[in-house]
Amino acid sequence: MAYRVLVWGLGAMGSGIAKNVLRKKELQLVGAIERDPSKIDRDLGEVLGLERSGRRVYSEPEKAILETRPDIVIIATNSFVNEVMPKIELAAKNNVNVLTIAEEMAYPYESNPEESKILENLACKYGISILGTGINPGFVLDFLIIAMTGACLKIDRIKASRINDLSPFGKTVMETQGVGTTPEEFKRGLEKGEIVGHIGFQQSIAMIGNAVGWRIDRIEETREPIISITERKTAVAHVKPGMVAGCRHTGRGFCGDELKIELIHPQQILPAIEGIETGDYIDIYGEPDIHLSIKPEIPGGKGTIALATNMIPEVINAAPGLLNMSELPVPKCLMDDIKEI
Amino acid sequence: MAYRVLVWGLGAMGSGIAKNVLRKKELQLVGAIERDPSKIDRDLGEVLGLERSGRRVYSEPEKAILETRPDIVIIATNSFVNEVMPKIELAAKNNVNVLTIAEEMAYPYESNPEESKILENLACKYGISILGTGINPGFVLDFLIIAMTGACLKIDRIKASRINDLSPFGKTVMETQGVGTTPEEFKRGLEKGEIVGHIGFQQSIAMIGNAVGWRIDRIEETREPIISITERKTAVAHVKPGMVAGCRHTGRGFCGDELKIELIHPQQILPAIEGIETGDYIDIYGEPDIHLSIKPEIPGGKGTIALATNMIPEVINAAPGLLNMSELPVPKCLMDDIKEI
Repeated sequence: MAYRVLVWGLGAMGSGIAKNVLRKKELQLVGAIERDPSKIDRDLGEVLGLERSGRRVYSEPEKAILETRPDIVIIATNSFVNEVMPKIELAAKNNVNVLTIAEEMAYPYESNPEESKILENLACKYGISILGTGINPGFVLDFLIIAMTGACLKIDRIKASRINDLSPFGKTVMETQGVGTTPEEFKRGLEKGEIVGHIGFQQSIAMIGNAVGWRIDRIEETREPIISITERKTAVAHVKPGMVAGCRHTGRGFCGDELKIELIHPQQILPAIEGIETGDYIDIYGEPDIHLSIKPEIPGGKGTIALATNMIPEVINAAPGLLNMSELPVPKCLMDDIKEI
Repeated sequence: MAYRVLVWGLGAMGSGIAKNVLRKKELQLVGAIERDPSKIDRDLGEVLGLERSGRRVYSEPEKAILETRPDIVIIATNSFVNEVMPKIELAAKNNVNVLTIAEEMAYPYESNPEESKILENLACKYGISILGTGINPGFVLDFLIIAMTGACLKIDRIKASRINDLSPFGKTVMETQGVGTTPEEFKRGLEKGEIVGHIGFQQSIAMIGNAVGWRIDRIEETREPIISITERKTAVAHVKPGMVAGCRHTGRGFCGDELKIELIHPQQILPAIEGIETGDYIDIYGEPDIHLSIKPEIPGGKGTIALATNMIPEVINAAPGLLNMSELPVPKCLMDDIKEI
């Protein structure tokens, strides 16, 4: 029997997850929840640009859960704990497991201790499991780092960076990363909270610290404009020399005054123009030192869709509770259902 | 309360694990089992070259278990399932969890199906967990590959290699890899089973296949001499041009006629002399492709000692059964006990 999966949110990520669920032998897509009027009450397959599926896009979440009786709901609607809380509560009260790509949910205990307690209690009360995951936070700058420390006798310090190319993304991402602004506009955008950079440093640093037993006293974040020397153009962005090509966002975790974890995530369009090689890089200083690189970087969209799909069986099979990636078995690519492809 | 750890075997690996257990906050070294008369009945700390520990080196396994009451025994004595079976059975019958670095135990189900069934039954009967782990098999060419597939929507084919330098190792390793032989001696050594190459390809390929749902019909192994062009010398080996610097061992897993998993492990002394860069390399072909490298390679000795130590809490906390690395939470470097260092 395949696990029954309900997808909440049919944006780029939610649609991608729904399509990926369709191709997996162990999974069965039973419906979706969406608020976009152009998608509501239509056949889910058609909304995804595929053939008719006999499954529906619902506008009323509780009705969707009651009618489709899912084993798990995948929430792909928001980034923050407070935004996804009511959705998780609804699923929990209907005894349905939850996986979400909300970045803060990857490790909510430090940023949202009260909400985490509520969620932990709900999970135990209703016998369900709750996991936040995605490519980052959830994999590259936390899970993979933790895994590499497992091959170390001791670790002193961790430095890692994820250098990616924002070119494939649309206008919203460009705006939240400040692409195409002047340095002055970038500064004002940061102050107003319109330019946010990456969401997840607090979570990744806390997850690593907890896994290796470092008491992280303080997390510092800096967001700096990446000033372009060259002209860079994509379908939706145009950056002239002297303007901002993206946001260099850094998170640093300290034990006392000692820098223990440094995560660097410069996100910009077309870094190759200025000779910058994209990739995921992990340096662990300890015994032994470990220097890992993935070139080019694991693409963010596909990676997040893959992890959200591939972790479904692990969440369903886990003991009840609010979980994080460092507590569950290693993710693995689920088998395709040859018949369905 | 720290977990009580008994180490069985005080060779290079067992001694290293014992020392590493001593420094870890969550772990307590309660004794060791060894058959070398020069070590028996002495203080374990002194045998390890450290200060007195008040813990003993036993020659009688059952007495050691009964007197030290361990939560787990770490078996670091042999490579093959059949060799460690009686030791595991003894631990099981005394309700003690087992972790072993015997390579075949990393995934024994395919190479030793009957013994695996016996071990699985014993584990369930006595409520204990059994795990085989180490740097390879156990981590680089299986666990890490599986983890990377978790970020993929689909995977078509896997190729990975571990290129290492045998220079730090002693005479036994040189002999089992054929270092310093002539090509003719290498060929005869292979035929006689004196040159064995790497132990673990069967296990790694079966573990990966099982994790990603590939039915591996056939595993082929090849062992070829690495003929040196240059003169290479270590403390225990001397290779002249035209002689053998090591063994290029390859394992290939097929689904039908299709090559799905190719693992390459050339082990030689001083590869840098001929411009070969050591490292661990993983290439996953799918959606997306992932190209990972770790340079230099994770050192085998330290990595195995680290994994054997760091997985102890996961084995003790797991549900009873015969386990493998793809079923347990990600390894993480255990905290040092500052007082003890």
